[in-house]
Amino acid sequence: MTSETSSESLNKIPDPDMIREAARRIYPYIHRTPVLTCSSLDELTKSKLFFKCENFQKVGAFKFRGASNAVLSTPQNIIEKGVATHSSGNHAQALALAARLRGVKAYIVMPENAPTVKKQAVAGYGAEIIECAPTLDSRESTLKQVVFETGAHFVHPYNDYRIIAGQATCAMELLEKVNDLEFIVAPVGGGGLLSGTALSATWFAPGTSVFGAEPTGADDACQSLHSGKIIPSVHPETVADGLLTSLGEKTFPIIQQYVKDIYTVSDDEIIMAMRWIWERMNIIVEPSAAVPLAVVIKHQKLFKGKRIGIILSGGNVDLSKLPF
Amino acid sequence: MTSETSSESLNKIPDPDMIREAARRIYPYIHRTPVLTCSSLDELTKSKLFFKCENFQKVGAFKFRGASNAVLSTPQNIIEKGVATHSSGNHAQALALAARLRGVKAYIVMPENAPTVKKQAVAGYGAEIIECAPTLDSRESTLKQVVFETGAHFVHPYNDYRIIAGQATCAMELLEKVNDLEFIVAPVGGGGLLSGTALSATWFAPGTSVFGAEPTGADDACQSLHSGKIIPSVHPETVADGLLTSLGEKTFPIIQQYVKDIYTVSDDEIIMAMRWIWERMNIIVEPSAAVPLAVVIKHQKLFKGKRIGIILSGGNVDLSKLPF
Repeated sequence: MTSETSSESLNKIPDPDMIREAARRIYPYIHRTPVLTCSSLDELTKSKLFFKCENFQKVGAFKFRGASNAVLSTPQNIIEKGVATHSSGNHAQALALAARLRGVKAYIVMPENAPTVKKQAVAGYGAEIIECAPTLDSRESTLKQVVFETGAHFVHPYNDYRIIAGQATCAMELLEKVNDLEFIVAPVGGGGLLSGTALSATWFAPGTSVFGAEPTGADDACQSLHSGKIIPSVHPETVADGLLTSLGEKTFPIIQQYVKDIYTVSDDEIIMAMRWIWERMNIIVEPSAAVPLAVVIKHQKLFKGKRIGIILSGGNVDLSKLPF
Repeated sequence: MTSETSSESLNKIPDPDMIREAARRIYPYIHRTPVLTCSSLDELTKSKLFFKCENFQKVGAFKFRGASNAVLSTPQNIIEKGVATHSSGNHAQALALAARLRGVKAYIVMPENAPTVKKQAVAGYGAEIIECAPTLDSRESTLKQVVFETGAHFVHPYNDYRIIAGQATCAMELLEKVNDLEFIVAPVGGGGLLSGTALSATWFAPGTSVFGAEPTGADDACQSLHSGKIIPSVHPETVADGLLTSLGEKTFPIIQQYVKDIYTVSDDEIIMAMRWIWERMNIIVEPSAAVPLAVVIKHQKLFKGKRIGIILSGGNVDLSKLPF
């Protein structure tokens, strides 16, 4: 790295200034998404809920915050040959759009069995798609090859402090808009969103406790937190397809230090919560985004009577394959 | 009537003061719904669209504005025995909730074949449901009987200046939030929303032209406007089930005088537009609410390059019976 700021942001847990800096950097490009409330979901949960609607974010998910912060903060000489990642989900689209904004190429390694609609979305942002076999091994080796051949700069979907600082801007915005939140609940997959949320609460609203919400079928983060070491996800299986990944060595320590606890819910509970959100709020969220509400419904004893921020992480669903 | 204000509001086309007064009256109870934009729908239509999201209104539709204005502006001696209407749609829920707020009974005449989910929603707001045969004759005679027996005050779903003034607050809010709109497009069924929209544009933004959007399968308003007399809807058939009714003698003259034109679209075009809104905006709208976007897509020549307000009228759909 040639830029001191940038090498610091690569190697240091985001402090308040780094998160504010990320916000200033990305605000010309992202949506400052609305916070919605819903009286019938308040009645259902006997609490006061504030939904931060990242399903309305560009590319339909919070992932664009982190990707744009990473891409926009990287020095020109590092990034001029483009960016690369492997992803079949929202990070792929987010990085593709961020690269287009910066005017550099994006190389996205995607499993050959990824849904056509996802490939089309990524290609629609002008990225080059490189197909691989649908295994983690193949994804990683293909990515390595791509980076070697093109000189592109690898941007990890979550195990990267620039990404974490970008995702942290979501809770920062929520806390600017809503006072006196007692809890924030965010979904956890690789931990980029959850660790960023916990940092923002710690720096900007120390009275607010952050909880993670995870599917039972991919409960590696819950297991990791409770056992004190990263336990990777093995054969995760859940309808919440954005939460299959395991924690990384950058996200895990932040979660250990700043997250109060992680709760798990079954796929049935997730689908039920998703349907509540669709029917009562008239908004579209993906299953992963419904996991926090499912946790609040399940653990009413803990959450009853509280003011709770809920991160609705994304809204990318295939309307012809709804789980209800 | 014993109140001068109220008898005036029953007999006079709403002027700017009456609409402002309606707004002041209902603002403690309604949602001031957000205005959303969507860059990919702007690209699709080659225009700049501002979506007024009444799908986020209480009871899921703009109807609550008019119903609450009517119920809250009626003198106590007129309304103390309750309110009554016949409706199988959003007006039923809207009147039921408005009556609950005022602390009076609501009697809702509903066809016996109305969906259970709709009856449950109305009953959930504490209204009494009176079933009738599924014909207009039976609805009207049953309502007459109910009014005779209970002394309840009849609130028509649209052919009532208090309702029109309430619906007008929607476009008033939109025009307060977004400057320099060249057009507003609103769906038209009985004409309460369209006439209110046209009045607000005329009084508060004289440079803004208002267009109606109607399904081809229920094009009575378009026919009426072009022939100069009310042509009732006969056997209307469309997926946009909120737009089956005919214009009334109070809504028609306002539409004649203040609406620029009414355009029609087919059910296929409506379903396509609805899917665009769901997929690109991640919000849930009912088919009727998608009719204005369908019109803008179809008549690109007219709408291209313009700043256009779109009234998304409601979001009440049965998720197990989606048209796509």
